[in-house]
Amino acid sequence: MLKNQDTKKSYGKLYGVGVGTGASDLLTLRAVNILRSVDTIAIPRSSLYASSVAWRIASPAVGKVEGQEHLYLEFPMTRDSSLVRPAWEKALGKIEKVLLQKKSLAFITEGDPLFFSTYIYLHQEAKKRWPGIHIEIVPGVSSFTAVASVASLPIADGQEKVAVIPARYGLDDLPEILRSFDTILLMKVSSVMPELVQILEKEGLLDCSVYVSRATMPYQKIEYNLKNIQNDSCDYFSMVVVRKTERSGVLMGATSQDKTAKPN
Amino acid sequence: MLKNQDTKKSYGKLYGVGVGTGASDLLTLRAVNILRSVDTIAIPRSSLYASSVAWRIASPAVGKVEGQEHLYLEFPMTRDSSLVRPAWEKALGKIEKVLLQKKSLAFITEGDPLFFSTYIYLHQEAKKRWPGIHIEIVPGVSSFTAVASVASLPIADGQEKVAVIPARYGLDDLPEILRSFDTILLMKVSSVMPELVQILEKEGLLDCSVYVSRATMPYQKIEYNLKNIQNDSCDYFSMVVVRKTERSGVLMGATSQDKTAKPN
Repeated sequence: MLKNQDTKKSYGKLYGVGVGTGASDLLTLRAVNILRSVDTIAIPRSSLYASSVAWRIASPAVGKVEGQEHLYLEFPMTRDSSLVRPAWEKALGKIEKVLLQKKSLAFITEGDPLFFSTYIYLHQEAKKRWPGIHIEIVPGVSSFTAVASVASLPIADGQEKVAVIPARYGLDDLPEILRSFDTILLMKVSSVMPELVQILEKEGLLDCSVYVSRATMPYQKIEYNLKNIQNDSCDYFSMVVVRKTERSGVLMGATSQDKTAKPN
Repeated sequence: MLKNQDTKKSYGKLYGVGVGTGASDLLTLRAVNILRSVDTIAIPRSSLYASSVAWRIASPAVGKVEGQEHLYLEFPMTRDSSLVRPAWEKALGKIEKVLLQKKSLAFITEGDPLFFSTYIYLHQEAKKRWPGIHIEIVPGVSSFTAVASVASLPIADGQEKVAVIPARYGLDDLPEILRSFDTILLMKVSSVMPELVQILEKEGLLDCSVYVSRATMPYQKIEYNLKNIQNDSCDYFSMVVVRKTERSGVLMGATSQDKTAKPN
């Protein structure tokens, strides 16, 4: 047991902090407190020349803290592991150096740290590489509730089933999912819009679908006519919500008129 | 247009405010600011004699605001519409009285206002009853990300599909969903535990399942051996997360050893 305790003392505390979806005032009080108190904030960005979306969200709320280090980490926007792996090795080396000095480090991430986030890989590697390290997760407002809030669209209630699908990995099983779930959230749809529109039309669900990009961010876009959306490979933060409302109800039947995604 | 503008002026602004899942410091900065500035906070509770969970969460962060009204509303904890409907009619009458005085009103709700929340019914009724009313939703940290954070368990990444199932309305299609999704979140499992354990065992998924109740609240409970959980009809805030991690991966293959729900 003593050995384990000694090991625990070898590293500073690691935090995975969700900064929410875009607006600085959607950070939680806990996120702000922790980001103001850690020795180092680890800030992911896509390249040496890019600004960090997560830090752009967090910095107005966190401000400048005397003596605090900002550790920028570069993660190329690709799933090509021959590029991503070396980037992660480099980042993990930099993080380890900080933790070995027993400094606390908070890795910031858009949305929530454990829901489709860059932080997840660090979380899994940290447990393997730094045994006994103390990790704390600070949950954040996640993309799909932000999308719901700006579209004024309930996601699910009562007996409803929800599916969350990363759209760009193929839509082969989507018709089946559309039939058996009540609300379907399609994440990162930017590269599959024409195919998606075709499927939704065939299933008779175009009228209860809404496209939202950059929810709660500047340049937020909400579009109820999905046919107006073309593929836009730049817009990473895009989502389509399909809401059927067939089994909806806090009070069953009370919302039966409410059959479309459009706020009425 | 003028008519519409006049109508808009007839009501105070309505807010649906998510206060997060249990800890007061998981309120967002926006939630705190709005709850400190509105004329009236509408506080749901299960009966005249019960304290409000949502207000217990919010009040340490909001504090006492000079001149602010607290409007308590009673919603019995049942889905029997012969009891729920009259309760809502009474509540809507009280809310309307405030809004007609052009006072702003914030209805607080645990988690997020548009994700399995009491607020949804008010949202739908408000649009019908008070045409032109200005509504703003403040998204909150939702239960499943809080569950993930306390269990230190990534929900989904990369190519993974997520299903959210309200467990108490029947588990007939669960085996099929368990096969086609990567992470399955079963909400409000308290009344179906033995049946659920049986299904998970049959599908060989007991080892990658975790039970969490009251995440981020006092008396939070995390249990990796689901057989230890008996039905507990009082514990409303309970969830089971099933995470398969077969297609997981920020870096495909990198997490292949990570096959159980237990943090390693």
